[in-house]
Amino acid sequence: MLRQHEMTVRVRYKETDAMGVLHHANYFVYFELGRTELLRASGGNYRKMEEGGLLVVVVKAECRFRRPAHYDDLLTLRTTVLRVTRAKIEQQCEVLRDGECLAVGHVTLAVVDRSGKVQPVPDWLREEEDET
Amino acid sequence: MLRQHEMTVRVRYKETDAMGVLHHANYFVYFELGRTELLRASGGNYRKMEEGGLLVVVVKAECRFRRPAHYDDLLTLRTTVLRVTRAKIEQQCEVLRDGECLAVGHVTLAVVDRSGKVQPVPDWLREEEDET
Amino acid sequence: MLRQHEMTVRVRYKETDAMGVLHHANYFVYFELGRTELLRASGGNYRKMEEGGLLVVVVKAECRFRRPAHYDDLLTLRTTVLRVTRAKIEQQCEVLRDGECLAVGHVTLAVVDRSGKVQPVPDWLREEEDET
Amino acid sequence: MLRQHEMTVRVRYKETDAMGVLHHANYFVYFELGRTELLRASGGNYRKMEEGGLLVVVVKAECRFRRPAHYDDLLTLRTTVLRVTRAKIEQQCEVLRDGECLAVGHVTLAVVDRSGKVQPVPDWLREEEDET
Repeated sequence: MLRQHEMTVRVRYKETDAMGVLHHANYFVYFELGRTELLRASGGNYRKMEEGGLLVVVVKAECRFRRPAHYDDLLTLRTTVLRVTRAKIEQQCEVLRDGECLAVGHVTLAVVDRSGKVQPVPDWLREEEDET
Repeated sequence: MLRQHEMTVRVRYKETDAMGVLHHANYFVYFELGRTELLRASGGNYRKMEEGGLLVVVVKAECRFRRPAHYDDLLTLRTTVLRVTRAKIEQQCEVLRDGECLAVGHVTLAVVDRSGKVQPVPDWLREEEDET
Repeated sequence: MLRQHEMTVRVRYKETDAMGVLHHANYFVYFELGRTELLRASGGNYRKMEEGGLLVVVVKAECRFRRPAHYDDLLTLRTTVLRVTRAKIEQQCEVLRDGECLAVGHVTLAVVDRSGKVQPVPDWLREEEDET
Repeated sequence: MLRQHEMTVRVRYKETDAMGVLHHANYFVYFELGRTELLRASGGNYRKMEEGGLLVVVVKAECRFRRPAHYDDLLTLRTTVLRVTRAKIEQQCEVLRDGECLAVGHVTLAVVDRSGKVQPVPDWLREEEDET
């Protein structure tokens, strides 16, 4: 899997709140977009993983909010794989606007089957892609 | 099933947008709360219906927005069953604040099985409850 | 303003529900994306309109749901301006997947000022763009 | 302000995702409900605080997810004020179902004015209510 991935996302009106800013819970939704696209860019596909019976669940999520984002802002999501073991995947997700970091999150993921039983993280998610 | 049901819902901060009002898409979420609780008040339970293999899907939804709702407003949802046939259920949902109508919606529902195939509306949903 | 605009949107995991499909209320969020981008493609910018004191509000919204959309589906939003008068804007929004229409919506919009008072639709929103 | 507050919240269909569980981002929305109602139970009102020009913003949010919640679950939100200084408020929010803890979150809040400038936490938020 790729170690890092960047994509852009534009803040939707629905995602703002009465303070006129991107509501903080939506950052966690953005982190999810980031890891979906990191997986796709690595040649994987989360939808196919699920159809194959493996679900990726969030075990822990955290975010530090530094500056607000606003409606229509074009943000960059930079997702970095920090660590992958047989038990879990740790990712960092930075939200940037014009190079300035607005928020930094960390998410710990585990893999489970349909019944919710923890499964080992598949090998192909653990191998770092050779970018040379 | 009961013909009419009322419940209250308080506008969440997350449900507001940068205009400082309840975002219009959330009214459709409220309508869903209204019909869930109408069903419960009638002695039914949507969760059990689903577990039994019958899903209620929205075929058409519409809403006229008259006045905005704001954060922390305590709203009344009045759900009225307009018509139930073997093919569909038609409901009206009014959103009120202090007796004033802010929005009126109409939703048409159908019943399907897990594969998405249309099923007849169960008898117990079609029978009007004798309130005498 | 352009009469028609198309864009794509990918269904987010957060937008699905326990039925495994795109929750119906999210179609109205997509319609909003469609009209934002139609405006941008026409040389306008909704954010700047708001900063200038004019807000576009939804007066009526309606959608017919024909087939479900699923997580990760790449959908096409086709927004068509049906009618623009001094009082309101009427748009149609079709949601398509591989050319198949999943849902068709209609939205009626009005223009208000910060205090909520109805304003005439600005001329530049009423003039059809000359595409020749 | 009260040190601890409990309220219930029922999981909405819209809040579930294709895994059939409460989507993890919604826990942060629940935490917000918990602190709004803790404030109200303490005799305060967040809406009035905002109208008075003071906004409470989330500086950091974190959650550990232990077990999934499902549609229609009636959950208990237990909000505990851990620490209040002139600079920030630290709260813990536990999400329970039938006494079992499903998730534990921690949120750090700061107070800002309309321009986003940090303000001291008002005295009345810092004083512990005498429950005797």
